[in-house]
Amino acid sequence: MIRAAASQVTRVVPTYRDGQWRHGDDQLAVEEPLEIRVAWDDGVSSGKQPITITMRTPGHDFELAAGFLFGEGIVSARSDIEQIGYCRDVMSEEERCNTVLVTLRPGLGLNLQRQERNFTTTSACGVCGKASLSALAIKGCEALPIEQSITANQICRLPALLREAQADFRSTGGVHACGLFEPGGSLIGLREDVGRHNAFDKLVGERFLANDATGMAGNVAVLSGRASFELLQKSLMARIPIVVALGAPSSLAVQIAESFNITLAGFARESGFNVYAGAERIRG
Amino acid sequence: MIRAAASQVTRVVPTYRDGQWRHGDDQLAVEEPLEIRVAWDDGVSSGKQPITITMRTPGHDFELAAGFLFGEGIVSARSDIEQIGYCRDVMSEEERCNTVLVTLRPGLGLNLQRQERNFTTTSACGVCGKASLSALAIKGCEALPIEQSITANQICRLPALLREAQADFRSTGGVHACGLFEPGGSLIGLREDVGRHNAFDKLVGERFLANDATGMAGNVAVLSGRASFELLQKSLMARIPIVVALGAPSSLAVQIAESFNITLAGFARESGFNVYAGAERIRG
Repeated sequence: MIRAAASQVTRVVPTYRDGQWRHGDDQLAVEEPLEIRVAWDDGVSSGKQPITITMRTPGHDFELAAGFLFGEGIVSARSDIEQIGYCRDVMSEEERCNTVLVTLRPGLGLNLQRQERNFTTTSACGVCGKASLSALAIKGCEALPIEQSITANQICRLPALLREAQADFRSTGGVHACGLFEPGGSLIGLREDVGRHNAFDKLVGERFLANDATGMAGNVAVLSGRASFELLQKSLMARIPIVVALGAPSSLAVQIAESFNITLAGFARESGFNVYAGAERIRG
Repeated sequence: MIRAAASQVTRVVPTYRDGQWRHGDDQLAVEEPLEIRVAWDDGVSSGKQPITITMRTPGHDFELAAGFLFGEGIVSARSDIEQIGYCRDVMSEEERCNTVLVTLRPGLGLNLQRQERNFTTTSACGVCGKASLSALAIKGCEALPIEQSITANQICRLPALLREAQADFRSTGGVHACGLFEPGGSLIGLREDVGRHNAFDKLVGERFLANDATGMAGNVAVLSGRASFELLQKSLMARIPIVVALGAPSSLAVQIAESFNITLAGFARESGFNVYAGAERIRG
C-alpha cells in the first residue's frame, strides 16, 4: 500500500538559551514537492500532463490536488473526477507519494485556455492587478451576494478557535493554517501546510471531494497569517464570503475583496480586528 | 520617465477594538506581479522570452530581476547583463512598471537546460527532495567552506538589528525582510517584500549589480520569517554561509543546509536560537 510521507520529523538539535547550550527534541514541518498530473480523454484528444508542482507538507494530498484543480477551474463538480491516486509509473515509493494523478471523467477535456488563465492568476499572474481582476471577471466570477452576516464578537473569537485546532503549528511553529468555520464558530475543517495556498487548497479540496462545494458559500475562512492575492482568489473561486486573517492583507487582496464583495478582516485578535472590505456583512 | 509603483498605500479603515468601532489610517504593503523577460542573441539564436512572473512589492525591481536571474544561473557575472529596463512594448504606464526586460550581453545565450533545471528547483521543484538536491549537486554547487565563524552572542543580536531596519514592516505588518549582515553585526543591505523569496532576490540582486557577488561569501543572511527550501537554495547559489531565521525552518531547508555546509539557525531571539546545521561555524 502506498502511504503519504509523514508531515513532521523529530530532530535533536543544539539550542542556545540564556547563555547556555542544550540539546532538545525539535519538531520540523516536512516540506516536499507534490506534482499534480491530469489524465483526460474527451473523445477528440486525450493525454496525461503535469499541471503544477507545489511545495507542500505531505498529507491530504488528494484533497490538495482536487482543491487545486477546482480552484483552477479545471474541474467544477465532484463527478468531473473519475479517480485520484498516487502515480504508479515512477521509480521509487518516495516518488510515488509525491505525484498525484487525477483522471478526469470520460468526455471532459483539459481546458487549456482556462488552465492558462488560471496559471495567469496564481503562480503566474497577469501583467498587473487590474489585468488579473479582469481575467477573473471575464472568467465569469460574479460578486458574492450579501446574504450571510457575522457579528464582531464572533470574529474576535475565531483566532482562538483556530489556534486550538492548529496541531502542527503547536509542535513545529512552521506551518500556516486555514480553517473553515460557521459564522457561529463551529469548526467545519482545518488544514495546515508550509504553503498557505496549499492549506487553503486542501481545505477547499476536502469540501469539494465531499461534494459540498456549495456548503462553503455560507461560511468563514480563517487564515493564520497574511491574506494574499492568491488566497482571496481561491476564496472567490470557492464562493466563501467572509475571510478573517490573523495577519495583514496585501493591497491586491483588498482589491479583490472589494471588487467581488468579499468581507475581509485582518489583524484579528481577541480584542479586535480591521475591516478591509465588505463591512456590511458585520453586525454589532 | 517611468517610475516604479509605490510600495505602500494608505487607507482609512474601520477598526474594532475593545468593543468599539473606530476609523484609522492603515498602511498596506502593495502586492503586484512582476514579469521578468530576457532578451538574448548568442549569434546562433536570439529572442525575447518571459522567464517568470512573481508577486512582489514594487520597488527595487531591477535588483529583483537580476537577483532572480543570478539565482537561476542564467547570468553569473555583472557583465552578463547588457541592460535592464521596464518593458516598453506594452500598453499602459502601469503595465510598463510591472514588466522588466533584461537584455543579456551579445553572445550569451539563454541556457534553457539550466533554466529548466532552475524551474525544477524553485517554483517547480523536482519530484522529491532528494531529486532536487541532486539537481543542485549536478549543477556544480559545492558545499560551502568552513572559513567564516560567528559567536552565539552575535547571532542573538541579529533579530533586533533586523527589526530596527524593517521600515515597511513597522508600518504595514505585512512584509517579509531579508537582511545581509557582517558577522559582527554591520548591516550590508536589507530588502522587504510580500514574498520572502522576492526580498531575498532583491538583496542578492543588489549585491550582484554592484558586482559584489563574491562579497556575500563572508556574511550572514537574516530572515524575518521561516526558512524554506527556496531561501536555502538561493543562499547556496549566493554562497552565503550563515542563515539566521526568526521563524522555523522546514525539513528540506535543513536538508540543503546539511548537504552544502550552510549554518542554519532558527527561532532566533535575543535569548537564544536553535541550530539546525553547520554548528561548527558558531563560537562561544
